Amino acid sequence: MAPTPVAELGARAKAAARVLAGASSAAKDDALRAGADLLVERAGEILAANEADVARSTADGAEATVVDRLRLTPARVEAMAGGLRLVAALPDPVGEIADGWVRPNGLRIRRVRVPLGVVAIVYENRPNVTSDAAGLCLKSGNAALLRGSSAAIGSNLAIAAVLREGFAKSGLPEDVVVAVDDPSREATVELLRLRGAVDCLVPRGGPSLVQAVLDNATVPYVIDGDGNCHVYVDAAADLDMAVAILVNAKTQRPSVCNAAESLLVHEAVADVFLPRAVAALDGVELVGDDRSRAIAAGWIGPATDDDFGREFLSLKMSVAVVPSLDAAVDHIARYGTGHTEAIVTGDLDAATRFTSEVDAAVVMVNASTRFTDGEEFGYGAEIGISTQKLHARGPMGLHQLTTLKYVVEGTGQIRT
Amino acid sequence: MAPTPVAELGARAKAAARVLAGASSAAKDDALRAGADLLVERAGEILAANEADVARSTADGAEATVVDRLRLTPARVEAMAGGLRLVAALPDPVGEIADGWVRPNGLRIRRVRVPLGVVAIVYENRPNVTSDAAGLCLKSGNAALLRGSSAAIGSNLAIAAVLREGFAKSGLPEDVVVAVDDPSREATVELLRLRGAVDCLVPRGGPSLVQAVLDNATVPYVIDGDGNCHVYVDAAADLDMAVAILVNAKTQRPSVCNAAESLLVHEAVADVFLPRAVAALDGVELVGDDRSRAIAAGWIGPATDDDFGREFLSLKMSVAVVPSLDAAVDHIARYGTGHTEAIVTGDLDAATRFTSEVDAAVVMVNASTRFTDGEEFGYGAEIGISTQKLHARGPMGLHQLTTLKYVVEGTGQIRT
Repeated sequence: MAPTPVAELGARAKAAARVLAGASSAAKDDALRAGADLLVERAGEILAANEADVARSTADGAEATVVDRLRLTPARVEAMAGGLRLVAALPDPVGEIADGWVRPNGLRIRRVRVPLGVVAIVYENRPNVTSDAAGLCLKSGNAALLRGSSAAIGSNLAIAAVLREGFAKSGLPEDVVVAVDDPSREATVELLRLRGAVDCLVPRGGPSLVQAVLDNATVPYVIDGDGNCHVYVDAAADLDMAVAILVNAKTQRPSVCNAAESLLVHEAVADVFLPRAVAALDGVELVGDDRSRAIAAGWIGPATDDDFGREFLSLKMSVAVVPSLDAAVDHIARYGTGHTEAIVTGDLDAATRFTSEVDAAVVMVNASTRFTDGEEFGYGAEIGISTQKLHARGPMGLHQLTTLKYVVEGTGQIRT
Repeated sequence: MAPTPVAELGARAKAAARVLAGASSAAKDDALRAGADLLVERAGEILAANEADVARSTADGAEATVVDRLRLTPARVEAMAGGLRLVAALPDPVGEIADGWVRPNGLRIRRVRVPLGVVAIVYENRPNVTSDAAGLCLKSGNAALLRGSSAAIGSNLAIAAVLREGFAKSGLPEDVVVAVDDPSREATVELLRLRGAVDCLVPRGGPSLVQAVLDNATVPYVIDGDGNCHVYVDAAADLDMAVAILVNAKTQRPSVCNAAESLLVHEAVADVFLPRAVAALDGVELVGDDRSRAIAAGWIGPATDDDFGREFLSLKMSVAVVPSLDAAVDHIARYGTGHTEAIVTGDLDAATRFTSEVDAAVVMVNASTRFTDGEEFGYGAEIGISTQKLHARGPMGLHQLTTLKYVVEGTGQIRT
């Protein structure tokens, strides 16, 4: 069957979005629960499609970790359904009044939270994103236009087909979820340029996807970018706490964007702290500057300038000794990606200066960088973590999938 | 003198932005007042540069209206200074806490309003934008990277030079205002791709500038787009009020984006209302659909489909008779640009449905579209009116030139 033109999918999603924008919370929550039930009921169909994707990837020689991310199991399908039920239980952001005021001429102004319209998600591997993204979009009143990886296309289309049918059970249009069935690069570029149909694009993938968006997109987008996160151990740090935070930030889940990639240590505590850090980070490859190597030469290899700018996403970490908090802030300004930066300190002035002067989505004081996460922040779920400053910054929950509309009520006012 | 490389200007603005982000409100307000004083003191220098720009434009055969927009007078320089003093008197948005909460694990989360960093403005003609934009950026803690039209380059550079000197009097770096002195198109494209230095771009110009931004920009931007604004006269409208709003929306200042371009009339009142509207809109060229022409054929010419999608920006207006509120909403969904849409009605249900179902930055009930404006909304000033849904929608004041940073404070929390 020939793939559906992306422009047609966009038009269908746009038409569905107009209907969905007026749907009640009850209708949306019913749809989410019906979708969850149907995912479980029709798991066999989804798993069969997934098996074919897995077989194709394996035959193509994909790495084992890639195949593992692609693979669905009955438990993973249950988890997708559970995710939809959790989203159904969250408060609906649509219709909230953000603020309002009255002008001297009597005009009453209020800002009302409304859906964006059509949200496009371009993502890599992990077919569960199809369900997670569709659920968050639906709850926030947005039609979802989904474009997963070509390796997972069978799984993604199977999940989308089940969700379309499930969501429609509460009377919503099937096109509130639309999956791109054309795996070509051209189709993705067309999606990136579907201005007028796509109200917001969230690319979820690596640097090459982000670059493709920067180079091609004419639709509005929010970048879910790299996290070159630092832990700065200040002169006034509680060193036990610093070790615990450092180990957690680096090793609890090294492959994710809120894992720490770089350790900065104030020179006043470097002699005592670095040997302890090295011991605690057993199994982590450390590369550092000359000063850190002078203290722990046998355990820290030489770092290149490039190492300080890298998001390793693995058990590797860069290390530098800094003469001051100012130097730490400068280092972060130079190498950071604006994701999450942490200070460990007992000094109020240091904490205040660090949180003021470091320019990042999230600045942590005495806590692990791993907490930058929609669920950990209390948003219930997240569609991504924005590293840009416009619209959404940091974890994006349901509110970040909405916009504000001004409603202005008068009694015949005209401008003079 | 060879023009300064745009990348160098970006780096200088970025360095200045870091200093400015930590400046007190008092220092910023002092700088704005010093800049205002110096504009007046050095008006001669600015007017001389402007005279050269005007002479060049005239010699190049520019239209009289274009030359008029370019021309500065002592009164216009005074007005620029007055604008800076007004901005100095506005509350500083930086440092505001938008919200905050405590997580079950004790993490204290707050969202703090901070400057964006470097705001780039690309604008056409009107040299006063140089001063207005620089002032709003400074107040909101942002360095301004300004690129005006080549016709006004002498005036813009003269104004920027005076402001740099004036702002520096309160100890701020001169590079909080940086003007691009290279009038080439290549320099503009380079600016649009200055990712890493420019945190937000606001293009202020016509469709060709917007298209250049969509095609070339890799920096984040907020589009200040067209306004194809409608006035819908409902079946339950007070027709006197409707005439007054229509005339005000269309004729009070037809060249601006919040002027009305299209009139929709419910069929139940069309026979009575249209002849009154035609009479009141004396001097406005009307083009309409068959139904409107059947009522007022002698006064309404035939409209093409293109006419309904056009922002005339002049004394011209399209007219259509619609059978229902639904048809009005559909018409606006098809032809509107998401700027401002108005309904005139006495019917609560019609007002509620119109404000819910119309997708625009601003929806007005019984008020002129002309009120979509930063000052009219009480923001004190505006940098533009956004027609996009991300980040800022509608009039952009000082708050829309800021972003929110998460500050998370713990006592050693790690993630399990």
